[in-house]
Amino acid sequence: MKTARHRGTARSPIGVFDSGVGGLTVLRSLVALLPREKFIYVGDTARVPYGTKSAESVRRFALEIARFLKRRRVKMVVVACNTVTAVALPDLRRFLPVPVLGVIEPGARAALAATRTGRVGIIGTEATIRSRAYEQAVRRLNPSIRSFSRACPLFVPLAEEGWTDHEVTRRVAKLYLNPVLRKGVDTLILGCTHYPLLKNTLRRVAGKTELIDSADETAKAVRSRLEQDGLLASSGRGACEFFSSDDPKKFTALGKRFLGRDLKGVKRIHLEGV
Amino acid sequence: MKTARHRGTARSPIGVFDSGVGGLTVLRSLVALLPREKFIYVGDTARVPYGTKSAESVRRFALEIARFLKRRRVKMVVVACNTVTAVALPDLRRFLPVPVLGVIEPGARAALAATRTGRVGIIGTEATIRSRAYEQAVRRLNPSIRSFSRACPLFVPLAEEGWTDHEVTRRVAKLYLNPVLRKGVDTLILGCTHYPLLKNTLRRVAGKTELIDSADETAKAVRSRLEQDGLLASSGRGACEFFSSDDPKKFTALGKRFLGRDLKGVKRIHLEGV
Repeated sequence: MKTARHRGTARSPIGVFDSGVGGLTVLRSLVALLPREKFIYVGDTARVPYGTKSAESVRRFALEIARFLKRRRVKMVVVACNTVTAVALPDLRRFLPVPVLGVIEPGARAALAATRTGRVGIIGTEATIRSRAYEQAVRRLNPSIRSFSRACPLFVPLAEEGWTDHEVTRRVAKLYLNPVLRKGVDTLILGCTHYPLLKNTLRRVAGKTELIDSADETAKAVRSRLEQDGLLASSGRGACEFFSSDDPKKFTALGKRFLGRDLKGVKRIHLEGV
Repeated sequence: MKTARHRGTARSPIGVFDSGVGGLTVLRSLVALLPREKFIYVGDTARVPYGTKSAESVRRFALEIARFLKRRRVKMVVVACNTVTAVALPDLRRFLPVPVLGVIEPGARAALAATRTGRVGIIGTEATIRSRAYEQAVRRLNPSIRSFSRACPLFVPLAEEGWTDHEVTRRVAKLYLNPVLRKGVDTLILGCTHYPLLKNTLRRVAGKTELIDSADETAKAVRSRLEQDGLLASSGRGACEFFSSDDPKKFTALGKRFLGRDLKGVKRIHLEGV
């Protein structure tokens, strides 16, 4: 099959995916930094969330999305989901003939650049924290850094409920973050693409601790890899195409808050057994 | 195909399903009332929750589970999930050759028996409330009843986080319930099988308002239908077999709180495209 060998050209699109709308915060940074690129975004809203599910299920879901993107002949895949990056990156790299970039390595890199005390906090979904992927990434980059992590399962539903600046979210954030903050961290990695929506609240709770959102750093990593491979789109107009596995209407409504602008023409995709 | 015509005998099992572990609160009542029956419980934990998803997706998921139960030659299917009952009951009844009972009609019936003022509150997931299935059931049974409903999307994640008697849950409950309570309801239907776990908190917030949990009422409806059809198991030992679409370990750990006792031998099931 030809598709299996396809490695893309500069004009090929870039595939971006997440369990739902959270990854649109990453797409937003990608579009800002790479305005000439064409993006195909897939949100698996029929099975969202991934972060409370087993690594085995998340891997299966991720490979189904990868199969769809492969057929669309993307030149690169950006895993805009911390949970998938944490548990399925090697599987995706084995399966796809094109480069696969995740959000964890860029996030860890940004945290290391920011910390002065060498004490870094990590928050994310249950699956991400359980995987210890951020701790390992941080340690690989600098073994002397100490990291402290905490799963925050209610942050995703609170963000999706729209309670981004709500007293309840503030209270929950205190309960989740205080044990980590008490360790004296000066930098906190937001290890879930939903969390940037809660930034105002998290900032109030975390005080002077610097909040690291991997979106911008991931976009930089994508650009540098495209440059390296000679695949950067240097002319033409950029575009975004959106696919969701549940109702496109809800994706459109919810996604706006994450992308920071209106989404148009979201299509429904049937992922299972693609 | 023979399966398509199978209607079961008294010794056939009863299929019970939910998006996850919530329906175990219904199974608990079923086992208490019908100790000689064999139950097959399916929890679609790989795709949980259903309540935030579109009716179309929920219908597709429900039919996949129904296909599995049909193959297991069940004599009846109990939809232990309010969301599925609300949006997919007619589809399931068309598809299955055996009786299909949901939780909404029994819940509405119990509320009508309890109310003195004729003002009933209904809480549930987004999908359940959006469907207006409870309001319609209440009105069908007694057109003079006035009902007031409210979606409570954070209750499921709060129950799964284990914050059943937590100050945050109490605060969220006040925010969700106060607008309904201010309507002067004397009865509140817990229109989601997760909510009975929050009963202590809900009782504190709802004061003298009676809380209606459809589990017991559903079990009674199941018994009376089995009697009618001459399919009640009158001898032998009861049993429960459990299937989950995500990791059986998590289902076992989380399910215990819902079933009120240990679960054993949970098997993994691959539902998509069954």
